[in-house]
Amino acid sequence: MALKTECQVRIANLQQQLQRKELDGALILYPIDLYYFAGTRQNGMLWVPQSGEPLLLIRKSLTRARQESCIDDLRPFPSSRQLTELVGRPGQRIGLTCDVLPIAQLDYLKKVLPEREFVDISGINRNLRSVKSPFEVEKIRHAGEQLSKVFAQVPDFYQPGMREVDLAAEFECRSRKLGSEGYVRMRAYNQELFQGLLVAGGSANQPGFFDGAVTGCGLSAASPHGASTAVIRPDMPLMVDYTAVYDGYIVDMSRIFVPGSIHPDVQHAFDTALEIQRQVIAALRPGAIASELFDLASSIAAEAGLGECFMGVPGEQAKFVGHGVGLELDEMPVLAKGFDVPLQQNQTIAIEPKFLLDGHGVVGIENTWAVDPEGGIRLSPADDRIVTLPAQGEPS
Amino acid sequence: MALKTECQVRIANLQQQLQRKELDGALILYPIDLYYFAGTRQNGMLWVPQSGEPLLLIRKSLTRARQESCIDDLRPFPSSRQLTELVGRPGQRIGLTCDVLPIAQLDYLKKVLPEREFVDISGINRNLRSVKSPFEVEKIRHAGEQLSKVFAQVPDFYQPGMREVDLAAEFECRSRKLGSEGYVRMRAYNQELFQGLLVAGGSANQPGFFDGAVTGCGLSAASPHGASTAVIRPDMPLMVDYTAVYDGYIVDMSRIFVPGSIHPDVQHAFDTALEIQRQVIAALRPGAIASELFDLASSIAAEAGLGECFMGVPGEQAKFVGHGVGLELDEMPVLAKGFDVPLQQNQTIAIEPKFLLDGHGVVGIENTWAVDPEGGIRLSPADDRIVTLPAQGEPS
Repeated sequence: MALKTECQVRIANLQQQLQRKELDGALILYPIDLYYFAGTRQNGMLWVPQSGEPLLLIRKSLTRARQESCIDDLRPFPSSRQLTELVGRPGQRIGLTCDVLPIAQLDYLKKVLPEREFVDISGINRNLRSVKSPFEVEKIRHAGEQLSKVFAQVPDFYQPGMREVDLAAEFECRSRKLGSEGYVRMRAYNQELFQGLLVAGGSANQPGFFDGAVTGCGLSAASPHGASTAVIRPDMPLMVDYTAVYDGYIVDMSRIFVPGSIHPDVQHAFDTALEIQRQVIAALRPGAIASELFDLASSIAAEAGLGECFMGVPGEQAKFVGHGVGLELDEMPVLAKGFDVPLQQNQTIAIEPKFLLDGHGVVGIENTWAVDPEGGIRLSPADDRIVTLPAQGEPS
Repeated sequence: MALKTECQVRIANLQQQLQRKELDGALILYPIDLYYFAGTRQNGMLWVPQSGEPLLLIRKSLTRARQESCIDDLRPFPSSRQLTELVGRPGQRIGLTCDVLPIAQLDYLKKVLPEREFVDISGINRNLRSVKSPFEVEKIRHAGEQLSKVFAQVPDFYQPGMREVDLAAEFECRSRKLGSEGYVRMRAYNQELFQGLLVAGGSANQPGFFDGAVTGCGLSAASPHGASTAVIRPDMPLMVDYTAVYDGYIVDMSRIFVPGSIHPDVQHAFDTALEIQRQVIAALRPGAIASELFDLASSIAAEAGLGECFMGVPGEQAKFVGHGVGLELDEMPVLAKGFDVPLQQNQTIAIEPKFLLDGHGVVGIENTWAVDPEGGIRLSPADDRIVTLPAQGEPS
């Protein structure tokens, strides 16, 4: 029942935006958009008129959609002729999430729904999704609690001489057993992530397509992100940057482990990251301007003498320090240059100040927070501190 | 160097098709398409004129693209004004893979490349990609050999009383340690897969969005496929249907395990699946008609008295018995009703005859094969037979 109320509120919010933009309705086709508004990600289409009851049309599986969805009017996917009767009328303006829907889908819709005008509602959708209900915040908090348990176990399963991919495999295994769904959705068509990034020492210097401070080498040019077959070396920082996914909701965290001893430069950069986190979180309130929080983070980095390696190596520095998370990893808002928008209560944001230290690798922290009048509320409880690991195995 | 030659041949094949369709060039933007033609999946754009040298423009990371790509003319992504000069001319017809590119990308391209006509080349791309070079076949064979090793280890890590997700986690862990990249690409915008489907007993009866014989319950309505938290029960078939990914190339396999004893109905259905595999593979030759191989499979199922539960429960039966695999899991051709196309040498196809047995679950076999004049060449060597597992733990 909680989900039913959730979906009703989400649809009412969408309808309010449709009215404001003078649109006659919205067609929701993309799987995670359908899940958000209808409670199911089966293969189908949700028609949300500007006012009145929504209509859910399901290709596959109707049986399962009936179990899951909170939409009362749920029908098997109709013939093209019937579809024309059911969805809007000629002359109407209909919203689509054009940021993700393929061009071929638009061509199909133009054919079966002639004389409608299709309008991009990506911005509306992303803005609505960025503000979480208490129900959604609890989902992310649950994900954060579960993922924190895996982070706490790293010293139990880390073994000297492991390759990055071995440790990643063990981490992923425990996360899955705790119930993480594994599949991480990203909205940008050119971004992909397989669960997380495990990057040790020099692997952090390999730049990549990923829109973050660090990408990692990955296992091939086809999957060029995350853990590689490089052996984790002693006395170098190891960053474990992972997601967990529960009921579709993603939490995003990073922790630093060091096999052996922590170099003073590494500790200095880490302490600076914690100070950035502290100050940004104190300011993570409704009305704060997203870009100003990035400026705040940058200025702390510069004061600590680390401006040149904040969020990347010189020339490849990312110009952000945080990003929205929810049903997708790359949600709104972004705490970045140019995002001069005010934060809203219960937006959920991963804050990740990180430094690329020449000769050491990547150092930093990442937690997921909810925007609140008292400052950010932490949703990922694991201890922030660097954890040291044995540099060498016990003599056998 | 092998990759450079590969990419040159792929681009020459594309240019030949562009000429045939009287297109002036193609713009390749989608990550896995870029990887296929340029050898890198960094964030950027490949311009392939109808004839002459291609041009690769990279947003991020230029450094990494230079390491990976075989395109000689590789440049940083230009300003919009420069882009207009570099990519085609007004009046020209330019191909795009409209099956996957978002509508918003088309809107952007129309702005920066005015007066060009954009034409869908999805079919050309999918057909080119369906036929593998010997280099590509070897990639899939390697994936098949590695994944076969994980299948062989299942009796070592299976424990009575495990939940589906526990066994899935252990399977995935070993596959990752052997080097599987994990991230499985699918082309259809409404399909998703997290590594594989592990489905025991009654979990097979849960229908779902997934375009296959079986979907599994998954962990939530947001990720409604694959392993669930259900405990694996004795005397019921357990289907382990998994992919492995190496250098982006996917292999697809299924095996049946039974904790305890094999019911005669399960054995009968399994033997029928093997017979379907045997006959379809014998016919997997250039020139064979894809839909006729599905008909052949269906008729063997019907003769064995299993027509009603072939590839799904009545009313939700999938109308295919095999699908192309390569850089994506849902490649061409499909051995399905309506696909009246001849097979081509070195198309790589996963053949997966499966039965949904009332009261038991799913039973069948899946291997990946290359089309060959002598009949299908096996790329996934693991033993086909059902493996029995202990029904109960050793008394302690």
